[in-house]
Amino acid sequence: ETEIPQDHPRYQSLITRHRIEEGVDTGITSPQGLIAEGRGEAFDYLLGEKTTSSADDAARAAAALLLHAEHPVISVNGNVAALVPEAIVELAEVVEADIEVNLFNRTEKRMNAIADHLYDHGAQTVKGLKADDQIPGLDHERGTVDADGIGAADVVLVPLEDGDRAAALDAVGKREIVIDLNPLSRSALAATVPIIDNVIRAVPNITEHASALKQADNVALTTVINRFDADEVRERAEQEIRRGELRSS
Amino acid sequence: ETEIPQDHPRYQSLITRHRIEEGVDTGITSPQGLIAEGRGEAFDYLLGEKTTSSADDAARAAAALLLHAEHPVISVNGNVAALVPEAIVELAEVVEADIEVNLFNRTEKRMNAIADHLYDHGAQTVKGLKADDQIPGLDHERGTVDADGIGAADVVLVPLEDGDRAAALDAVGKREIVIDLNPLSRSALAATVPIIDNVIRAVPNITEHASALKQADNVALTTVINRFDADEVRERAEQEIRRGELRSS
Repeated sequence: ETEIPQDHPRYQSLITRHRIEEGVDTGITSPQGLIAEGRGEAFDYLLGEKTTSSADDAARAAAALLLHAEHPVISVNGNVAALVPEAIVELAEVVEADIEVNLFNRTEKRMNAIADHLYDHGAQTVKGLKADDQIPGLDHERGTVDADGIGAADVVLVPLEDGDRAAALDAVGKREIVIDLNPLSRSALAATVPIIDNVIRAVPNITEHASALKQADNVALTTVINRFDADEVRERAEQEIRRGELRSS
Repeated sequence: ETEIPQDHPRYQSLITRHRIEEGVDTGITSPQGLIAEGRGEAFDYLLGEKTTSSADDAARAAAALLLHAEHPVISVNGNVAALVPEAIVELAEVVEADIEVNLFNRTEKRMNAIADHLYDHGAQTVKGLKADDQIPGLDHERGTVDADGIGAADVVLVPLEDGDRAAALDAVGKREIVIDLNPLSRSALAATVPIIDNVIRAVPNITEHASALKQADNVALTTVINRFDADEVRERAEQEIRRGELRSS
């Protein structure tokens, strides 16, 4: 990875490709995860492969929501683990959140491969393997969580979440931060804070905002959260996508 | 596959998913092919997952171009083989075209798996394994073709083609029919006939038009080809995509 110079015009795209391929080799990334990655690439292409100002506003609100939470949890699936393992670990440290592995196609082998990958990137604790609680309204495998992780969370960051699960987490009153490149996906619509951005750019950006807001008191954090307008963010992202450049470079 | 009823509202999507997963199991579909499938899904979603009237016009022009050709060849990669093997064989029969396997990431193992898959679906001859000719301007592996296949073709149907290769085939004077869901991809821009449609709908549709045009003489075929306006088709598809529905069902 160090062979790709950071100032290469396609650096982000090359790193993404490389990490996804490594994820396939190590069993972290599933075939469905690869298809989802492609769907995201198409929307990111239309967005101009950049963090828009509305996505940056959302990342700041997400940082405030995580810092203000009693028990924040970052939910990690195969693509998230493959693409941004160190950024997830860093964010969890800054906002003092739990990390929990939560897969759409859950197998013990993939759960362990992903937990190991996160430990390799500096995670202190990775939850999701106890699987002693259940989110109502989902198939058993898909609703399985840890009782002292997502089960007890008041705020959950779910990057690249499936629509059914985002709706089920919303239904049990958890506040969700969703990172999704389609502003009108069911996940983005269920979110308290939808971040319409590539996970590779969004996760470090939340961390940056969290570091800046670290000393803010609860009144200041609440102000940031209350001023955030999710509908406006989704609407602005939709306009960006509709105006977006289709021609490839 | 026979377990999915054809009148299921998500029939096409379920069949696609099923065939792609089978393609992974049999080694036909590559990780990059899965990502490309996802990119296509996003654009198809915006197009409304239907064949637009401009895509139908393009399919008719493609049928005329294939019937009019001296030596038409259908180029098949991993996703095409996984998704529409029988439709490719049927089209090749109706327009009397060669079938040639041509991969972006060429390995002997995948070449053979794909050829076998096409033979299993009724193909009489599958080219691409002699690899005794070269398209100029491409890396050796990517430019490799059969001398009596794509090497000798005047018209090539390249569904889901990579932009570099579409440009290189165009540069040596071959007329290309491209099936691509992005109307402004480099492949779609290089095409004499760009069909902005899902390969699952487009290939059988070309065959249907070819059957209807089978008795037409060269004057009639030339009229269909000359009346076709590639720029207008790309423009109309772009407008459809920009207006498309983002909200999921």
